[in-house]
Amino acid sequence: MAEEFRLIDRYFKPLSEGLHAGDIGIGDDGAVLSIPAGHQLVVVTDTLVSGVHFPVDAKPYDIAWKALAVNLSDLAAMAAKPGFFSLALTLPQNDPVWLEEFARGLQAISQAYNIPLIGGDTTKGPLTITVTAHGWVKQGRALLRSGAKLDDVICVSGCLGDAGLGLKHALNQLTETEQARLTPSQWQSVLQALHRPQPQLGLGEALSGKANAGIDVSDGLLADLGHILECSQARLQQALGAELYLNELPLSSAMQAWFAHESSWHLPLAAGDDYQLCLTMSEAVYTQLKTQFPDHLYRIGKITSADGIVFWDRPQAQGGKAMSHKDVLGEPYCHANGYQHF
Amino acid sequence: MAEEFRLIDRYFKPLSEGLHAGDIGIGDDGAVLSIPAGHQLVVVTDTLVSGVHFPVDAKPYDIAWKALAVNLSDLAAMAAKPGFFSLALTLPQNDPVWLEEFARGLQAISQAYNIPLIGGDTTKGPLTITVTAHGWVKQGRALLRSGAKLDDVICVSGCLGDAGLGLKHALNQLTETEQARLTPSQWQSVLQALHRPQPQLGLGEALSGKANAGIDVSDGLLADLGHILECSQARLQQALGAELYLNELPLSSAMQAWFAHESSWHLPLAAGDDYQLCLTMSEAVYTQLKTQFPDHLYRIGKITSADGIVFWDRPQAQGGKAMSHKDVLGEPYCHANGYQHF
Repeated sequence: MAEEFRLIDRYFKPLSEGLHAGDIGIGDDGAVLSIPAGHQLVVVTDTLVSGVHFPVDAKPYDIAWKALAVNLSDLAAMAAKPGFFSLALTLPQNDPVWLEEFARGLQAISQAYNIPLIGGDTTKGPLTITVTAHGWVKQGRALLRSGAKLDDVICVSGCLGDAGLGLKHALNQLTETEQARLTPSQWQSVLQALHRPQPQLGLGEALSGKANAGIDVSDGLLADLGHILECSQARLQQALGAELYLNELPLSSAMQAWFAHESSWHLPLAAGDDYQLCLTMSEAVYTQLKTQFPDHLYRIGKITSADGIVFWDRPQAQGGKAMSHKDVLGEPYCHANGYQHF
Repeated sequence: MAEEFRLIDRYFKPLSEGLHAGDIGIGDDGAVLSIPAGHQLVVVTDTLVSGVHFPVDAKPYDIAWKALAVNLSDLAAMAAKPGFFSLALTLPQNDPVWLEEFARGLQAISQAYNIPLIGGDTTKGPLTITVTAHGWVKQGRALLRSGAKLDDVICVSGCLGDAGLGLKHALNQLTETEQARLTPSQWQSVLQALHRPQPQLGLGEALSGKANAGIDVSDGLLADLGHILECSQARLQQALGAELYLNELPLSSAMQAWFAHESSWHLPLAAGDDYQLCLTMSEAVYTQLKTQFPDHLYRIGKITSADGIVFWDRPQAQGGKAMSHKDVLGEPYCHANGYQHF
C-alpha cells in the first residue's frame, strides 16, 4: 500500500489546509481542533455503499462529491456553520486512477464549501465511504426536527424529484417513450441532481434562531416532513399535521416535462435523495427570509392541528380541493433509497 | 427495516445516556454537543471490515467492543479525555440476534469507559463498522507523535504480541505442536487480547503535558515507534533513532510460554493489534508516572541520535550486546493487519 500512502500525501493532504493556527489535521492518531467559544459542536455521519447509495459504475469524482454533500446537507439542516470533516474510505483495491479522481471530487466540494479534511482511515474491503462532518452553532441555537408549531409555514429550499428521476435514468429503468420526454440537457440536469447534490449551507446558517424546525430531504419529502411532525408532536404533546399545496411545489423544467405525461407525484414527494431542506417557520420569519433567499425558499404548505399530511391541488383560498393519497401518489408509498439515520 | 428501527430504539438509544444537559444525541439530522471551555476537540476514526480486521466468524459482541476500543486507544494516544462517539454500521442483512449482541458489546465498552453514543447511520451492505470518537485536551496539550527528544525514555503500557498470537489461533494457522505450547487458559487470554483490547485511557489522560510523544501500537511496535521517530525527526530537523532492550519487553505468561520454543521476536515487535501505548518521555517524568501507574508503564529503550532502531539483548550497562534485525525478527519484516491511518 506504499503507493496509496503517496497518493494520500499527494491528493488528500492538500484538503487539510484551512485549519486554524494551533489545530492539527492529518498525520497523527487523531486530529486536534478548536471550537469557537460560546458555540456547540454539531456532528453528522453518513455512509455511502456501492450499489446501494450510488450505482456500481458511478464516477469516483461524483461518489466523493456526494459522500461529503449528504453530510453537509445534514449540517445545513441543523443550521450549523461547516467546520471540518473526517473520511473513512474502504476500497476493494489500490487503484491510483480511481483514487486520484475520488480525491479530485472531494477537493472540489471541500473547497466549494470551505471545509477542510482532518484525517481518517483507509481500509481494504468492499467500496464504502463514511464521512463524519463537524460544524458549530451558537449555544442552544441548533435547528431541530422537533420545533414545528401550529400554523407554521412549510417551505422547501428548491426543486424536488430530480434526483429520483436521475436514478431511474442511471439504472436504465426507462422505456424509450419515457426517455423521449426530456431533452438531453434536461437528462443531464437530473443526473447532476443525483450525483452532485448542492448542500444548502448558505440558507442553513441563516436559519439558526429563526426557523422553528428543519430536516434535509434525503428519504423523500413525505417521510422527512413526517419526521418533523412526529418529533414536534412528541415535544408539544399535541397533534400536528400538514397541508401541502401541490401547485406550489417547486419543479425543475425537467420535472415539468416529465409531468406532462405523468399523473403520480411519487418522484417529488417520495423518491428522496434531493438534499433540499424542508423547514417550518412563522409567517414573519418566512417573509423576511424569502427576501434574503428568493431562489432558495418556497412555501409549500402549513402546519395544522389535524393528524397526518393532507394534499390540496392548490390552497383553499384559491378554490383548491383536497386530494387522496392514492390520487396523488398513484402507487403504494415507498422510499427510493436505503438510508436510515438514528 | 422497521424491526431494525425498534432495535435501534431499544438497544442503541440507551447508549446515548450521559450527555451534558442541553446536548442532543440520537434522533435528529446530527448531534449537538458542548466542549469544555479552554479545551481542544480531538477526533479519531477507525473502520473495521469483516474478514480484514476481524475473522468473518467473530462474535458480534467482540466486533462491537473492538470497533470502539481501537478508537478509544487512539484517544488515549492523544492524551485525550473521552467525550462521545458516532457509529456508522453497514450490515448485510437485518438480523436482530446479531444486532442485539452487537449492541450489547457496544454498551459494555461504552459504559466501561463512560463514553456515550451520539448517533450515526445504518446502511445495507457488506459488514463494515466505522466509529468516530471524540474527546478533548486542554488547549495545546494533545500528545503528538512528533514530540520525541534525544535521550527520552521509551515505554510501552503493557504486554505486546498477544493479539498477534491470538490471531494465529483464530485463523487456525497453528500446528498441533504449536497449540500444545500454551495451556487452554493462556489461549483464552491471547484471544481476549485479540477480541477485547483494553484502551489505555486512564494512563492516556495522565500523559497530557507530561509525555513528549505517544502513539498506540496498532501496526506493531517497530512500525509505530518508527512513526514517532519519523515525525519527531521532521520536526526537530535532526536524526533520531532508538535503542530497544529485548529483555525489558513486557511479555504475558502466554507469550513467555510461546517463546520457550521460538527465536523470532516477530509477534511482540511487528504483529500489531495490541493497542498498548508506545510513549517517549524524560527520565524525570518516567519516574513520576511509573510510581502512579506501576503496572501500565514499562521502560523498553531510549531515543538516540543514530538513525533507525537498534536492538540490544539487554542494556549496555548490563553487559548487553547489539543484535541484527535478522537475528531478532528471523523473517522479513511485515505488518499483520490492514490498518492504515492518514
